[in-house]
Amino acid sequence: MLDSKFLNAMNISLDLALEAREIIRGETGQEIPGVRVDKDTYDHATVTTVHIEDQNAQTIMGKPVGKYITIEAPVIKENNQQAHREVAEILAEQLKNLINLPMELNVLVIGLGNWNATPDALGPKVVDQCLVTRHLYNYAPQELQGGMRPVSALAPGVLGTTGIETAEIVRGVVEKTRPSLIIAIDSLAARSVDRIATTIQVADTGINPGSGIGNKRAGINQETMGVRVIAIGVPTVTHAAIIAQDAIEKYINSTGGQPGDASSAIKNVLEPFGSNLTVTPKEIDILIEDTAQIIAGAINMAMHPGISPEDYGYYLH
Amino acid sequence: MLDSKFLNAMNISLDLALEAREIIRGETGQEIPGVRVDKDTYDHATVTTVHIEDQNAQTIMGKPVGKYITIEAPVIKENNQQAHREVAEILAEQLKNLINLPMELNVLVIGLGNWNATPDALGPKVVDQCLVTRHLYNYAPQELQGGMRPVSALAPGVLGTTGIETAEIVRGVVEKTRPSLIIAIDSLAARSVDRIATTIQVADTGINPGSGIGNKRAGINQETMGVRVIAIGVPTVTHAAIIAQDAIEKYINSTGGQPGDASSAIKNVLEPFGSNLTVTPKEIDILIEDTAQIIAGAINMAMHPGISPEDYGYYLH
Amino acid sequence: MLDSKFLNAMNISLDLALEAREIIRGETGQEIPGVRVDKDTYDHATVTTVHIEDQNAQTIMGKPVGKYITIEAPVIKENNQQAHREVAEILAEQLKNLINLPMELNVLVIGLGNWNATPDALGPKVVDQCLVTRHLYNYAPQELQGGMRPVSALAPGVLGTTGIETAEIVRGVVEKTRPSLIIAIDSLAARSVDRIATTIQVADTGINPGSGIGNKRAGINQETMGVRVIAIGVPTVTHAAIIAQDAIEKYINSTGGQPGDASSAIKNVLEPFGSNLTVTPKEIDILIEDTAQIIAGAINMAMHPGISPEDYGYYLH
Amino acid sequence: MLDSKFLNAMNISLDLALEAREIIRGETGQEIPGVRVDKDTYDHATVTTVHIEDQNAQTIMGKPVGKYITIEAPVIKENNQQAHREVAEILAEQLKNLINLPMELNVLVIGLGNWNATPDALGPKVVDQCLVTRHLYNYAPQELQGGMRPVSALAPGVLGTTGIETAEIVRGVVEKTRPSLIIAIDSLAARSVDRIATTIQVADTGINPGSGIGNKRAGINQETMGVRVIAIGVPTVTHAAIIAQDAIEKYINSTGGQPGDASSAIKNVLEPFGSNLTVTPKEIDILIEDTAQIIAGAINMAMHPGISPEDYGYYLH
Repeated sequence: MLDSKFLNAMNISLDLALEAREIIRGETGQEIPGVRVDKDTYDHATVTTVHIEDQNAQTIMGKPVGKYITIEAPVIKENNQQAHREVAEILAEQLKNLINLPMELNVLVIGLGNWNATPDALGPKVVDQCLVTRHLYNYAPQELQGGMRPVSALAPGVLGTTGIETAEIVRGVVEKTRPSLIIAIDSLAARSVDRIATTIQVADTGINPGSGIGNKRAGINQETMGVRVIAIGVPTVTHAAIIAQDAIEKYINSTGGQPGDASSAIKNVLEPFGSNLTVTPKEIDILIEDTAQIIAGAINMAMHPGISPEDYGYYLH
Repeated sequence: MLDSKFLNAMNISLDLALEAREIIRGETGQEIPGVRVDKDTYDHATVTTVHIEDQNAQTIMGKPVGKYITIEAPVIKENNQQAHREVAEILAEQLKNLINLPMELNVLVIGLGNWNATPDALGPKVVDQCLVTRHLYNYAPQELQGGMRPVSALAPGVLGTTGIETAEIVRGVVEKTRPSLIIAIDSLAARSVDRIATTIQVADTGINPGSGIGNKRAGINQETMGVRVIAIGVPTVTHAAIIAQDAIEKYINSTGGQPGDASSAIKNVLEPFGSNLTVTPKEIDILIEDTAQIIAGAINMAMHPGISPEDYGYYLH
Repeated sequence: MLDSKFLNAMNISLDLALEAREIIRGETGQEIPGVRVDKDTYDHATVTTVHIEDQNAQTIMGKPVGKYITIEAPVIKENNQQAHREVAEILAEQLKNLINLPMELNVLVIGLGNWNATPDALGPKVVDQCLVTRHLYNYAPQELQGGMRPVSALAPGVLGTTGIETAEIVRGVVEKTRPSLIIAIDSLAARSVDRIATTIQVADTGINPGSGIGNKRAGINQETMGVRVIAIGVPTVTHAAIIAQDAIEKYINSTGGQPGDASSAIKNVLEPFGSNLTVTPKEIDILIEDTAQIIAGAINMAMHPGISPEDYGYYLH
Repeated sequence: MLDSKFLNAMNISLDLALEAREIIRGETGQEIPGVRVDKDTYDHATVTTVHIEDQNAQTIMGKPVGKYITIEAPVIKENNQQAHREVAEILAEQLKNLINLPMELNVLVIGLGNWNATPDALGPKVVDQCLVTRHLYNYAPQELQGGMRPVSALAPGVLGTTGIETAEIVRGVVEKTRPSLIIAIDSLAARSVDRIATTIQVADTGINPGSGIGNKRAGINQETMGVRVIAIGVPTVTHAAIIAQDAIEKYINSTGGQPGDASSAIKNVLEPFGSNLTVTPKEIDILIEDTAQIIAGAINMAMHPGISPEDYGYYLH
């Protein structure tokens, strides 16, 4: 069964709090103490917020105390630009609520992941479309400054290509530029393939070890950075091991059998790559392109309420 | 069980003749009539040639009559440059034997696949490193012409980005440039993950419908192009459906059970992407980079025996 | 002086008909017989159409008989998205008038130039943003087909990287896909630096030898392709030789002197690159990005009047 | 005349110490006090070292006290791979002499410049080919560690795309990773076009304000970073203003005249871009590709004398 035991055996941690909760509730059959859930419904999206409220819930969920907002919008995959704009507006609204920061304070946007591997390129692609204003802010007219924020943006690369832990690079830049908030964007791995490019998670707890599909061992969070970190993640892959486990379970159930521990059979099939194997749809390049546009659009709206989209050009590199 | 019936149910055709043969032999327990197999062993590679010799074998194997040379070299994944050079030399030797063409005749290299999706970018990346000489050939000194060939190269893109069947583009270019041979490079899907970036298939039958991971519905072969087509393919992905099926089989076997038809359980897990889901290792960008270098190196050696690697620079764009 | 004699000595031909006319009129002091000029004025742009009406004018201008529409819009460089949209609409209007083709007929968009050299990458970047519909057209609902057109798009690369004349590739594709019209996009070289990323030329005569900054020796025009070719070009560079000549002239004039033939002095300064040297602003990457967006937007509007921008996503790869 | 006065008027500073010295010597007709010059000759290259030895020379030259090694190798442009290897070995030798650092100490390679603008992409392209070992160093076998060094590498982007001064980013990373040496690679602007892709300057003074073609206002040097900085630069462009001035001078001389101050005539021609206009050969993409390979090769040889090129693969991302 796809339970905590299996995930541990395969060395997989679930990136989406919503999925982690489903698994655990599936095991216990009841709501986890210290976990509270809110739900909002929009035309093209459902917004579910999982609040992890105490240490006990943190231990059970394997995720730090905090807010995990999940926007489920199958329309992202449908490539309807009008609907994409609506999803971007919903995301912008959520970001604004979380941010709650005087306009003149610095924000640093970090695009995690690897430019060269399509499913891991979401973060760098968002950074590429962010309205960067920190270097222009002081030259902007007074009346404009009220509606914009000094924003900087960086795609620090991955350990394999820099030789430096991503968190070290970000920490160095944070100490030099003293942002009041970090927004970190990352590709996630979901449990279920139908979450690929349909779900956006916003967490006020930052990036924590074990998350994401790349090599980001040290966390990027309030504790390591000294400022609040909002993480925005979108599942772009699923673990092959989970697909295999789900298929086994579905099949056994269909035969009326009782599934047992399949982890060693699965490990065997996935040799020599192991938990390093991910499942992606062929059209991942288009999905990443569209999702990056939605997230960058939402960040730009949330950061600069006073700049109309018509004027973006002036600030876009 | 992973048999022809399952592959049909999932709408999957196996790209490697070696794997297709294994499946069918597994079903019948004996060599397929009309199929003959040769094997050579090298330091870093095994070369197995599957000869499909008659119509009957063609029907059973689902692949046209012809030669399918498979170079199995796990060292490709190990990133040992010296060993990579040896694999390139083995591939060059195989190509030279197949080509067997007077030096002054034109060869057209076609890189199939999609630049923007890492696992499908092998073909375009090989084209990018090919020694293109067709436009310089007539200006080269007489004594050099004896050791080089007029080569041209094209990465025609995929149907989704051009609106044109790849085979139509290639056909058009063939009619204008009249090559005596086409070499087509493509990403393949393997049955087993341990074939990813360890196996190179060279087929003298060209590209045939159902092969590859992209959108290449019409064949690129002698029949459609009017000239011989040698296809070079490397598995860069596995079908998620096969991973799931293998896991089910391994697990059931381990419980002493008897596996039945799991195709509907698997289809269910793979919703909404279906057979469109592929499994890739995270480091696919590096694997593609290295494999492209080996294949381009082998093509350059096979095409231009008289140009020493020191002089490549002059011809490389 | 920057006259026809100097341009011939330096082996430079002017891409913009407007500039060619200015030079010749400067020499003769009067309108060229067989050349007629119209002018329209918009908020953010001036549209000047040079009509070359007979063989005599063709010989003098060094450009085939036809219509050369020049949109001068300094606002392109200013990065004001609202104004960019207006320029795109003006260009779309001009294209619609020129095209004048039943909706069900095929159009092929060709992006000339070299992906890897920023100032020459305009064509490929436009192709990347074109709404490609040819492969979907027959599956689209009847009522939608009335407002869209079957469009395909190709970036054929340059001679140095393919070994094939671009015109040969295009010709081959044309023969296979039988479009009723070709739209070819190319980077141009202007006489004056203030035309870089401020001027768009639309010519109903296609691409003719001597034009553009890349290697496109054979023409892409009605004669070579068998169908009408509309060329859209934007200056992205100036010839270094022209900059040098203009500076000499301005300086000599300022000293009250009489400029003579400076071509050998200039050739000497430009060694070893000669007429191969181009002048570009540092921010050329941003200018190319913005211009590509305007041109692709205009082509999409002109091609598919029935598809609202909201629905573009569905057709964009 | 192309003298200091003209360069000041045009707001241009010369990146190559060799060229700066020539200009000044041309003005005074004698060697600059406090400047000493050495010269070595190789098969494919000349190596000239300009030593700026005291404050007085620093003021006159407009460059800090230090060593400026210039490798002049026209063969770089000729694309002869064997000769390229020799140039790489000469550069590696020079780097080894300058570095003179115990093997276990960290080195940080910084690739300055803008990925998206071909002539400014040299730094990022070198970083992409550097053998990054810092994250593997502690896992490497003891006997290997003697012949390799912990190296990390970063392409920090440019101010326009990050909103952060490049020097700030580098400083932050330096404070976190504590390298004992920085090697910074940058594109330069030369006075003469025949220096484009034929000249490599290595300076032990780092990057200083006014250098380079991008936006790097603050220096990256011992003073700002707290560790030694070796700068490697290659001219990839020339200033359009210098081309214009040289042409005027050559022309006036040819007429037997006496050139005066042409700066206002030149400014006028270069409107609206001014000193922002650069001159590049069309084939700049190939030149950058080749030069990046030479520099990365030299850095890898100088850093890791114990790793044979055959084993590079294991460390290359």
